[in-house]
Amino acid sequence: MSSRRDRPSPAAARNRDPAPRSPWKAAGGRQRERQLKREAVIREAARAFSERGYHNTSLDHIAARLEVSKPTVYYYVESKEQLLFECFVAGVEPVRAACREARALPLPARERLAVVLRRYGEAVASDLGWCMVRAEDLDLPPAMSGHIRRMKSQIDQDIRRLIREGIEDGSIGQCDPKMTAFALAGALNWIAHWYRDSQELTGDEIAAAFVAIFEQGLLPRAATGARPRRTWTAPRRA
Amino acid sequence: MSSRRDRPSPAAARNRDPAPRSPWKAAGGRQRERQLKREAVIREAARAFSERGYHNTSLDHIAARLEVSKPTVYYYVESKEQLLFECFVAGVEPVRAACREARALPLPARERLAVVLRRYGEAVASDLGWCMVRAEDLDLPPAMSGHIRRMKSQIDQDIRRLIREGIEDGSIGQCDPKMTAFALAGALNWIAHWYRDSQELTGDEIAAAFVAIFEQGLLPRAATGARPRRTWTAPRRA
Repeated sequence: MSSRRDRPSPAAARNRDPAPRSPWKAAGGRQRERQLKREAVIREAARAFSERGYHNTSLDHIAARLEVSKPTVYYYVESKEQLLFECFVAGVEPVRAACREARALPLPARERLAVVLRRYGEAVASDLGWCMVRAEDLDLPPAMSGHIRRMKSQIDQDIRRLIREGIEDGSIGQCDPKMTAFALAGALNWIAHWYRDSQELTGDEIAAAFVAIFEQGLLPRAATGARPRRTWTAPRRA
Repeated sequence: MSSRRDRPSPAAARNRDPAPRSPWKAAGGRQRERQLKREAVIREAARAFSERGYHNTSLDHIAARLEVSKPTVYYYVESKEQLLFECFVAGVEPVRAACREARALPLPARERLAVVLRRYGEAVASDLGWCMVRAEDLDLPPAMSGHIRRMKSQIDQDIRRLIREGIEDGSIGQCDPKMTAFALAGALNWIAHWYRDSQELTGDEIAAAFVAIFEQGLLPRAATGARPRRTWTAPRRA
């Protein structure tokens, strides 16, 4: 999953500017380089927190993994707490973007919900997943914790709203939106506990499998009226 | 959820013995009392770990909550690590019992699976849920961690087997047993992250709601052939 890389930054837009001698080009290039390096710090920190645990990981560890000095890491983030916070934000940002996109898509609500759930599953299965799932419990300063809770709550509300809209437009069966949102998000969040890169499935394959499971349910579907194309089985890897 | 209290202990069985003067009765009574006190220590520790975090909780804290001395706590458990381990065991024991019972029930596999999933949900929503879900990640000694992993793996295998049996007996639709087991267990495990006693639903109501969501799936069910009695909505509380 690549949160910010998917969107061209203002600096990148300037780099495509036809005026070659503009002093802004160099400044933009520096800004873009700084952004890329900052993202590398965040991603390496997320891997380290996930592998070693947050409390067992220092900025020294992260600097060593990046083969830079600790002051270099401090150039990009003020503290380990901020680093964890940024890992969380980088993880949830594509999910928040999917929630915004899902509002405007000309599709039944169940399919718009599936877009959000797939992006959610991919994010949790990424390097950033552990931080997405754990950041709230790791004694961050109250302002950061509050920000995290508000972002999570917004995603939860968006999922509930899509479920309600699906019940209204007939694409989702009768259910309790709040409990259903908890069940869906819980199943997806838990991916961070069991998924490793060595798994036979990629993050997006797992996300697609989970969406199929949520949609179908355990009860067999009647032969007619069911949508067997949604049935999913694990692809075989060589 | 009351793991050990539901099953009469050997000591309790002796207490029902008609011979009133047996010296074993007193010994049995002491043993039973010790067992009850030990369970109280475990349950209070589980509450403390869940509220304060494991690393922020000392045996002093737990002793203070129980209004006893620290040596009294040590009389029941050797260390904080052992206490966390016992919290885990007390939490999963009813789930393991449900897995064993489910093998013998004369019911379609989906209904036997529902028995396990309901007991699982109730356990995770209990005081012991946080320890059930977190114990593996909290730097316990390798022997304890290994034991926890084996117990979790056994429950996972039991759930997968019930899903396979359900596909074979026609009570569960086609699905990938491994991914489905991960989705179900993940949704249930996540209850420990959001459930508080102040919730409007009890643990068993949440477990029943989740089983209904798993069974129905999001796609609407055809009016005939569906089983609308399984549809679940939150009861209203005063």
